[in-house]
Amino acid sequence: MGTARLETFSAGVLAIAATLLILDVHAEGSPLGQVVHIWPRYAAYALSFTVIGIIWVNHNAVIGLLGHVDRRFLFMNLFFLLVVAFIPFPTQLVADHIRAGGHDARDAVLAYGITLTLMAVAYNVMWFYAIREGRLLKPSADPKTVAGITRSFRPGIPIYVASTLVAFASSAASIAMFGALALFYVLESSMFARDERPV
Amino acid sequence: MGTARLETFSAGVLAIAATLLILDVHAEGSPLGQVVHIWPRYAAYALSFTVIGIIWVNHNAVIGLLGHVDRRFLFMNLFFLLVVAFIPFPTQLVADHIRAGGHDARDAVLAYGITLTLMAVAYNVMWFYAIREGRLLKPSADPKTVAGITRSFRPGIPIYVASTLVAFASSAASIAMFGALALFYVLESSMFARDERPV
Amino acid sequence: MGTARLETFSAGVLAIAATLLILDVHAEGSPLGQVVHIWPRYAAYALSFTVIGIIWVNHNAVIGLLGHVDRRFLFMNLFFLLVVAFIPFPTQLVADHIRAGGHDARDAVLAYGITLTLMAVAYNVMWFYAIREGRLLKPSADPKTVAGITRSFRPGIPIYVASTLVAFASSAASIAMFGALALFYVLESSMFARDERPV
Amino acid sequence: MGTARLETFSAGVLAIAATLLILDVHAEGSPLGQVVHIWPRYAAYALSFTVIGIIWVNHNAVIGLLGHVDRRFLFMNLFFLLVVAFIPFPTQLVADHIRAGGHDARDAVLAYGITLTLMAVAYNVMWFYAIREGRLLKPSADPKTVAGITRSFRPGIPIYVASTLVAFASSAASIAMFGALALFYVLESSMFARDERPV
Repeated sequence: MGTARLETFSAGVLAIAATLLILDVHAEGSPLGQVVHIWPRYAAYALSFTVIGIIWVNHNAVIGLLGHVDRRFLFMNLFFLLVVAFIPFPTQLVADHIRAGGHDARDAVLAYGITLTLMAVAYNVMWFYAIREGRLLKPSADPKTVAGITRSFRPGIPIYVASTLVAFASSAASIAMFGALALFYVLESSMFARDERPV
Repeated sequence: MGTARLETFSAGVLAIAATLLILDVHAEGSPLGQVVHIWPRYAAYALSFTVIGIIWVNHNAVIGLLGHVDRRFLFMNLFFLLVVAFIPFPTQLVADHIRAGGHDARDAVLAYGITLTLMAVAYNVMWFYAIREGRLLKPSADPKTVAGITRSFRPGIPIYVASTLVAFASSAASIAMFGALALFYVLESSMFARDERPV
Repeated sequence: MGTARLETFSAGVLAIAATLLILDVHAEGSPLGQVVHIWPRYAAYALSFTVIGIIWVNHNAVIGLLGHVDRRFLFMNLFFLLVVAFIPFPTQLVADHIRAGGHDARDAVLAYGITLTLMAVAYNVMWFYAIREGRLLKPSADPKTVAGITRSFRPGIPIYVASTLVAFASSAASIAMFGALALFYVLESSMFARDERPV
Repeated sequence: MGTARLETFSAGVLAIAATLLILDVHAEGSPLGQVVHIWPRYAAYALSFTVIGIIWVNHNAVIGLLGHVDRRFLFMNLFFLLVVAFIPFPTQLVADHIRAGGHDARDAVLAYGITLTLMAVAYNVMWFYAIREGRLLKPSADPKTVAGITRSFRPGIPIYVASTLVAFASSAASIAMFGALALFYVLESSMFARDERPV
């Protein structure tokens, strides 16, 4: 199977998951008070939309290097999408409970962090499966680009695990780290995009 | 009509149906208790997302062998999509009632099983219509691949019917069988994917 | 602008509108009673999914004959999509009220019928705009095919208006007519598909 | 990266955001009274669907002039989509509160206007980034077309800001201006579409 169908289906799931996030932004009662009061919903929406957007950009970069996919890769990708499409749920938990603090906020942030960590795991599994002995790579895939992606993926899981664990000390600090990671990624990859990094 | 439009529309419906499943994962009240307590929702989400993913993989395999489609096939495919897009409803029933046991759990699992059985029936109708006298097959479609798909589809309906009927003895056993079938399919087709099986 | 982008966007809206219909199928309370009791929801889901599917098939047939589109056609198509994406709302009204009968059922069916009539109007406007002096047609578009579509579109508006007006006599008869029209269309175009009719 | 993937993902988000608008059209109680009574929901649905449709048409025009995109543009586009996918929320606020008048209506309309203004800002940022020193333009992009788009984008932000500020005088006048702007855009670009304006 070529990669075009996989890309279309994956882009569809990612676009839908991102766009569905708005369904959890709602205000009850008088909008004046509510519209300001529910700012954690806006923040959670913006964070998860950006996270899914980054995932889409990275997924494109990976798929663009592949010449074909096999069934194992398809199912790894399916598990990956299953995790990404799950993101709206912990997003809502965080939006609902972050302000309350305490155990509820902590548990919501833990759910968020575990979901992103699982996503990073699924991502790494897909990537290392694809490049193992050049299994699924295009013949024309540039080894330096491949090595660059591998290098940039390596810190992903430890960083996500660490950010998640911070929730045991402070829920706010943990979610702020996820926000900072997304922002850093966008800025860094916009500012210092080298040629060898695929778009 | 070529097959590209059919593929795009079908992939869209499948991607949306899978991603909408998250809308039925929600927790009320304190997340600590809820987040653990609602595990049947996670399980139901994972099961149906995987089932729809498998359907997408198989649908691709079938469409990839076709050279063109006619109106009858279009409407068979539409009925097929109608059934697949229905899956979120019995999924929610199962998630809501499986833990309660008794008649409610049984009826929810029956609804789930009947939906999957209908899906298998629609699938078989499409497939046998398409290959009858090579009606819609590409000239280049490999007869061994076609025969392999036919062989792998044959047990589908009886297995789904049997798994559904198990609900009269045990709802939990029935839904576990649907889970085992999905898992088996993913593992088997990943492990032993032969060359003659299309991706 | 070529027609490919228009097709992708339109197919996306149609696929989403059809798949969103499942969100209005839900059962409260004990599933045993509910699952049977809510049959109007299943019927409404099946009807509107089929209607949107037929719209998609026809839309493809029309777009397939066009060589290019202009801005006016884009906005006509947008209005058309606006009406089609509205279908889930009157579908839910019908599902909620058809069994109650009386004024509520009548009004729900009227809303359904008016929506489908508007859709037919938008369709005809698009079609006659596109073919007027061959404005947007492909040079290779077969005049017999074009004439066949024109012929098959002509009765659309009067039939929809008549079916809608039947609601003043009987809501059930009116909605049954919409169901019969969809079924007839699927069967007729499957059974007697002539070569000059585009898929 | 070529522009095709960006187009597909963006069209997906826009199609979903537009189609999700119907989820906020719902009627409680007896449909007869409700179906008429909830007209602000229909109006809000029609307005935002049209606004998103216009955005899609313009987005196509812009992307069609680009030869490639870079990471910065990808993330600008992502922010743009984040704002557009947010539109269903202020749409619902307006539909819920416009009739009540007073502070609630004003705040709802302000939220709507601020969202559209942000969208216009994101649009302008993307556009001026893309054309700066011809950075992302196709070599074949017609300078007159580019200059025409620049000219038509310039008044966007001031007009949106002005329409938003009108809400402090009258909520109804402000939302009517947004409606008039959409209508004017559709009519003007349909009627007087010049050749140099890309579709």
